[in-house]
Amino acid sequence: MVKIHGRHYRSIWVADDGWSVEVIDQTALPHEVRILTLATVDDAGEAIRTMRVRGAPLIGAAAAYGVCLALRRDPSDRSLAAAVARLAATRPTAVNLQWALGEIAAAVSALPQEDRAAAAYRRAAAICDEDVEICRRIGVHGLGILRELAGSTRGRPLNVLTHCNAGWLATVDWGTALAPLYMAHDAGLDLHVWVDETRPRNQGAALTAFELGAHGVPHTVVVDSAGGHLMQRGLVDVCIVGSDRTTRTGDVANKIGTYLKALAAHANGIPFYVALPHPTIDWTIRDGLREIPIEQRDPREVSRIAGRAADGRVVEVEVVAPGSPAANFAFDVTPARYVTALITDRGVCPASEAGLAGLFPELAAAR
Amino acid sequence: MVKIHGRHYRSIWVADDGWSVEVIDQTALPHEVRILTLATVDDAGEAIRTMRVRGAPLIGAAAAYGVCLALRRDPSDRSLAAAVARLAATRPTAVNLQWALGEIAAAVSALPQEDRAAAAYRRAAAICDEDVEICRRIGVHGLGILRELAGSTRGRPLNVLTHCNAGWLATVDWGTALAPLYMAHDAGLDLHVWVDETRPRNQGAALTAFELGAHGVPHTVVVDSAGGHLMQRGLVDVCIVGSDRTTRTGDVANKIGTYLKALAAHANGIPFYVALPHPTIDWTIRDGLREIPIEQRDPREVSRIAGRAADGRVVEVEVVAPGSPAANFAFDVTPARYVTALITDRGVCPASEAGLAGLFPELAAAR
Repeated sequence: MVKIHGRHYRSIWVADDGWSVEVIDQTALPHEVRILTLATVDDAGEAIRTMRVRGAPLIGAAAAYGVCLALRRDPSDRSLAAAVARLAATRPTAVNLQWALGEIAAAVSALPQEDRAAAAYRRAAAICDEDVEICRRIGVHGLGILRELAGSTRGRPLNVLTHCNAGWLATVDWGTALAPLYMAHDAGLDLHVWVDETRPRNQGAALTAFELGAHGVPHTVVVDSAGGHLMQRGLVDVCIVGSDRTTRTGDVANKIGTYLKALAAHANGIPFYVALPHPTIDWTIRDGLREIPIEQRDPREVSRIAGRAADGRVVEVEVVAPGSPAANFAFDVTPARYVTALITDRGVCPASEAGLAGLFPELAAAR
Repeated sequence: MVKIHGRHYRSIWVADDGWSVEVIDQTALPHEVRILTLATVDDAGEAIRTMRVRGAPLIGAAAAYGVCLALRRDPSDRSLAAAVARLAATRPTAVNLQWALGEIAAAVSALPQEDRAAAAYRRAAAICDEDVEICRRIGVHGLGILRELAGSTRGRPLNVLTHCNAGWLATVDWGTALAPLYMAHDAGLDLHVWVDETRPRNQGAALTAFELGAHGVPHTVVVDSAGGHLMQRGLVDVCIVGSDRTTRTGDVANKIGTYLKALAAHANGIPFYVALPHPTIDWTIRDGLREIPIEQRDPREVSRIAGRAADGRVVEVEVVAPGSPAANFAFDVTPARYVTALITDRGVCPASEAGLAGLFPELAAAR
């Protein structure tokens, strides 16, 4: 998707040695583009847990390669089971993680041990290529929505608000919520994107702003609290966000704060879209509030912020009053009734069981 | 209100020399308790503009003393007018600033020049004492609400969410939104306060957490995006916030993000109270969205965050992708329909013209 220093990058790839896996260390962005090599399943698990790679689709891809790295060393059933269990435990909310692990396990478990690693690498590469194609299709379907909305802005830019990072850094390439924006920009639509900072990890200010800036898409970073004001004042035409898990009924788990933006969009009559690849749909559950586990992460992600000091060094600073505890809920659930529509790789549908089943009848029926 | 190093502090006071004015530099909190001396009207204006003192009531008190400092040097009409004009321009949203300047001007303008400075100091001191009494009364009225709510928590703590800082640091003493919480805690109510971080200036994490910690009130800091999730999950029983300006119809301007919390409270059936001293009411306007000017501050308040580094030094770090612009809207307006009631120094009333006029008939009639 993006060219950095003249080179075209995906967010994850197999290194020149043909087996180790390279990723962009997202905890170093936007201050430094640092490439991290994953050589073991532990490396992969640690990269996911510490969010050096994040975003539901990319977590899936990284977990898939994590199993490859395990099978390369030890292709036994026991090794496969241990790798899957270990990787499945790294992040609880995103369902793509479980989906990708299931795909790899299904691809290799019936094979003789000597064939497993190669088959796993093939399936992992296919998952990545499929993700790119899925995101491209999300982009095409979302572009149609943006074109229509742009028709009524009367000469001013179409103002889009997005929360967190659902761009190419969250996927393998293109992104989910950002794919339509890239395509719209490339197609000459006059766009402007409000980028929510997205505390505590600042993925909006650090990653989405980095992506949009690199691609030349006009944008402005605002604090997470600003969205309501912007919507109330007519400064937002449409919201588009990603999803970490979507129920079969259209409830959407996404980065903490998404729900507040959905409420504000609803109160102000602004369309609120969720862009999601179909592996993000959890067909086994109906009630997002009751059934999606919400990850609670280290409170130090709230009490400390990393940034670039005046001398260029990246340092972590403490921002909470000494002795005061913090809590860190990583996601929230937006009930389907606040979602205008879901933008999937098969098209746009209402955020409802009928809507999703209409686009994915075979997946809806399988459960 | 608070004891720091064994000494009881207000947020502003006249120094031992009898004329210069001392304040706690709130930009140094929570890392350092630094006392700042204001010796000129320029000092006062600069302290307000750069938010070394902030919070609508404290801004009023600081502006009042700013006029005293000007009149002490030059008690002429011209000096008075210049001081008022200069201080009035420091912050556009809080109406207490204009109110306090009007009070001082009214107290001195008919006097002979030699009597003006002393009269100004007396009126400024009275404004401070009145503010303390106003806040104490807000506390008493708010305590009644909290007592009632605490009756239905069945043995668990009453969970209160507050946004920004409306404590003793935002006023002269006690605070507005926090006054009821201090009184409830002192009265033995089992309380827990969710403290919104309140980006961009982190007044929740830095100031409210500092205040509550110093007073021993149980609390937890969360990012601004967390409130919707907390309310959706039954983890908030009541929201209480302050106000920078309230229309005669009950629309409330307060720190950016207040509106999002009001929407979430409304959607989840949670009472949302605004605590305000009567000088915060702007009787001249009816439509908060159209008539209250919203301050836009330096985008660097969004792109940079100050905190304490591992070596103890306070440093400012850049958190936004290089080259990405930011915007910094300081306040938003919560329409009266989302406000359960206003907690004023004269009692609790509906957020409506009839409600406010019922409590303050002489002020409502004067316009």
